[in-house]
Amino acid sequence: MTDTWNRHHVLSLADFTPDEYDTVLQTANSFREVLSRRTKKVPTLQGQVVANLFFESSTRTRSSFELAAKRLSADTLNFAPGSSSLTKGETILDTAKTYLAMGTDMMVIRHREAGVPQAIANEMDRLGVKVGVLNAGDGQHEHPSQALLDLFTITTLLDPNQPQLSLLKDKKIAIVGDILHSRVARSNLWSLTASGAEVHLAGPPTLVPQLFADFVKEPTDEGLGLKASSKQPDSSSSLNPLAFSRKLFLHWSLEPALRNADFVMTLRLQKERMTSHLLPSLREYHQQFGITRDRLKLCNPDVKLLHPGPVNRGVEISSDLMDDPQFSLISQQVTSGVAVRMALLYLMGSSKV
Amino acid sequence: MTDTWNRHHVLSLADFTPDEYDTVLQTANSFREVLSRRTKKVPTLQGQVVANLFFESSTRTRSSFELAAKRLSADTLNFAPGSSSLTKGETILDTAKTYLAMGTDMMVIRHREAGVPQAIANEMDRLGVKVGVLNAGDGQHEHPSQALLDLFTITTLLDPNQPQLSLLKDKKIAIVGDILHSRVARSNLWSLTASGAEVHLAGPPTLVPQLFADFVKEPTDEGLGLKASSKQPDSSSSLNPLAFSRKLFLHWSLEPALRNADFVMTLRLQKERMTSHLLPSLREYHQQFGITRDRLKLCNPDVKLLHPGPVNRGVEISSDLMDDPQFSLISQQVTSGVAVRMALLYLMGSSKV
Amino acid sequence: MTDTWNRHHVLSLADFTPDEYDTVLQTANSFREVLSRRTKKVPTLQGQVVANLFFESSTRTRSSFELAAKRLSADTLNFAPGSSSLTKGETILDTAKTYLAMGTDMMVIRHREAGVPQAIANEMDRLGVKVGVLNAGDGQHEHPSQALLDLFTITTLLDPNQPQLSLLKDKKIAIVGDILHSRVARSNLWSLTASGAEVHLAGPPTLVPQLFADFVKEPTDEGLGLKASSKQPDSSSSLNPLAFSRKLFLHWSLEPALRNADFVMTLRLQKERMTSHLLPSLREYHQQFGITRDRLKLCNPDVKLLHPGPVNRGVEISSDLMDDPQFSLISQQVTSGVAVRMALLYLMGSSKV
Repeated sequence: MTDTWNRHHVLSLADFTPDEYDTVLQTANSFREVLSRRTKKVPTLQGQVVANLFFESSTRTRSSFELAAKRLSADTLNFAPGSSSLTKGETILDTAKTYLAMGTDMMVIRHREAGVPQAIANEMDRLGVKVGVLNAGDGQHEHPSQALLDLFTITTLLDPNQPQLSLLKDKKIAIVGDILHSRVARSNLWSLTASGAEVHLAGPPTLVPQLFADFVKEPTDEGLGLKASSKQPDSSSSLNPLAFSRKLFLHWSLEPALRNADFVMTLRLQKERMTSHLLPSLREYHQQFGITRDRLKLCNPDVKLLHPGPVNRGVEISSDLMDDPQFSLISQQVTSGVAVRMALLYLMGSSKV
Repeated sequence: MTDTWNRHHVLSLADFTPDEYDTVLQTANSFREVLSRRTKKVPTLQGQVVANLFFESSTRTRSSFELAAKRLSADTLNFAPGSSSLTKGETILDTAKTYLAMGTDMMVIRHREAGVPQAIANEMDRLGVKVGVLNAGDGQHEHPSQALLDLFTITTLLDPNQPQLSLLKDKKIAIVGDILHSRVARSNLWSLTASGAEVHLAGPPTLVPQLFADFVKEPTDEGLGLKASSKQPDSSSSLNPLAFSRKLFLHWSLEPALRNADFVMTLRLQKERMTSHLLPSLREYHQQFGITRDRLKLCNPDVKLLHPGPVNRGVEISSDLMDDPQFSLISQQVTSGVAVRMALLYLMGSSKV
Repeated sequence: MTDTWNRHHVLSLADFTPDEYDTVLQTANSFREVLSRRTKKVPTLQGQVVANLFFESSTRTRSSFELAAKRLSADTLNFAPGSSSLTKGETILDTAKTYLAMGTDMMVIRHREAGVPQAIANEMDRLGVKVGVLNAGDGQHEHPSQALLDLFTITTLLDPNQPQLSLLKDKKIAIVGDILHSRVARSNLWSLTASGAEVHLAGPPTLVPQLFADFVKEPTDEGLGLKASSKQPDSSSSLNPLAFSRKLFLHWSLEPALRNADFVMTLRLQKERMTSHLLPSLREYHQQFGITRDRLKLCNPDVKLLHPGPVNRGVEISSDLMDDPQFSLISQQVTSGVAVRMALLYLMGSSKV
């Protein structure tokens, strides 16, 4: 299964190949089976050390990684930024090298600045050490394990035995909310468009990313669409060989994104956006872009809802809908998170490169 | 041993039966034996996850639960309120459901508001999941594991081989201090009166709980006594079938509570009570209600002292008395805590219901 | 190997014997071998509990001890001062006794006040319990595990198979920086002078310790030197039988300390020294006492650099030098730290006394 895997680091999904997506999905599925046992533990990483270097504090994601590591029997170290050498003026790279020198085998890194995990990975490579670096969220850049757990949640729903990228082909997926500031959205854009799904972004104009302006050339009747054939693969870019086939659409209103959607992925609204005048009010946001039972009627009847959490109840999603197992995949996402993170740590640890 | 145990949750001692108390005591006693070995660990909860969700911060109690879980070979997750999604607006129930979805088997919950552990337990039951919830202190309501470790400390002193509730029958136990605000006192009242012990509460009038006004009908020459026969079981209340036989006495001075007492349980005085004008000064409190070597002469010569910790030395107890092994059971209480919490986690995990 | 070891506690290096140094070095070397395996774990302390009581917060040292304990298969408890009973008025000794009563086998203690680990060790001895106490840094007093890891780093460089104290005989070692406030310097002075090395201290006059004024009687042409023969062993002091043979020199400029040095140990400069007017500016400090490639030419060509970390790049050491593996032993120090701390925990746990 791991013949197709040669990454020490998981930093971004921009250059993930379909084989790599499928390897993660299938590995995660085998760990999902482990998690259904009474003794949810395997000795895979016995004696190895996973350091959670969360320079930006987090409970949810850190706990998920910590649990994933422990269920692989690894020892874990947690870095607490509040009480750290950082306040003593040490650079981030020096902190990472300290954990390296202690004998850390894998580092899971979150930082408020984009690019920090990449910089640490570069340094590890420069030093010639086989230490894997996993980006657990860097600024507004990427959060690959979140997008992979979203992908796993969706594909195991479509085929619990053989989750694979191609199951999403021609599905319509709406991503709703603060696209501009969302590392979750950025990572999901790579995976979902790579699958051949039709991805529709919806949000207020202030939260629509400039980043995508390049991709979006031709308005369609459903918004601003990216025609598959209008963009040839850019031979100078090794990062994104699949860009030419991605189907991406932008909307500044909710309805065209929801129409016949198979999945609706809502993003967390950072309340601090209000103070920076990007949003009028939570109430107004909910009126325009909040997902309600009524609005879901626009979607495919089997539509499912996702949210990376934590949810502002009654803002991104109406509160009753969030708890409705007919529609909500939110708790499955959390469960998938542990299996997917076990898979990533396992694959990174077994990389031969 | 666990035939008499059918609880997933331990939230309150109000409805504990004598059989349940004895099951906890006997199970804890078998773990006490484990703790006397060099390798103080058993594989009982191998591969299970215990999440310590301490919304109110704590070192002592959290460490005790963490150690109990680790000695049962469980993996532990610690929730740090400071760095949590709570600051991002997530509800407490959503936080609990996130830990549930990650695969938590048992949750140990402390919160400054009474009723939070119960609310989380209700939600787990509503969802139909077999996740145990243990109340590690909720507001001024209850702290059942503390009362059970007090009970274990006392009963193993009376019979190290067969600790059981009935050993306390007709013993006189004084509880001294801030009854009004004490969750420790509340839980102990259920267990100690259930044992048939004579329980005497003593404290300044401002710290005497309104809660007990209902129970206390007839003044006695020793204070305000609750005559056993004067109260019939209330058939409308399934919570407290034993209330009619409880022997509870209130005093607004120390001496009648101490006279011939077999055990004196002092409560921690929250220094912030002074600022709210419930107490004149620590010095005056100690003069009226502090336990000193002199005052202990009023008690049974074999009297033992308990305190849930942390102690304000020289306030609740004179400093020398606290360290005197002839009288003080304080360190035994801490040791009992680990054994009792192992027992509770074990029993909750093995409940068939 | 442990015939020469009879310490429960490691509090100071003042009374360490050459045999004890060598026992630590050889034990650490055997653990270094364990750390080079894929499964870096041994079952030595299975079922034992190591409590990290860091009253002064730390990430680096705490992680190192935590990892050392985990690699010996111990369970660890971390004490977080921010959320502790200390804020509730509990004394430090009572906190330690609480962890004792929970079943802690070894305590690793850091505190901003000198003498706290010693006081806790005294209390453990008074109570007659076999709990080891390790000083992980107390005020400006000592940090023995740091000095031992420095010693291990240097001696394994000199002989990877047989690191021992005598390898340092007649080596010249410069210690540069804030000697006055450094617990690292204090512990290193004991070990390095005990080895028969020639130790040269250099720093600005404001940071030269009064402590050493007693030792330093006769100026030499290289600064203020302590002649080996000028001081007889003080029979009233059992702490320091080796003082008479220590070769210690003080300098208020860098050059004489560096000349022909085999090792240069730089100390961390606390930036808060500037606000207390002990230092003019970081730039001026670097100009006078910063280690640069140019200045290293004064040393032995094989000279190696050490620093306890975290480093203020460009202050104590020029940034490029810090990363140059030809000179810098900084990452080896961190690696040595885990092996040396495993050795200390192992030896303390196996002490027969």
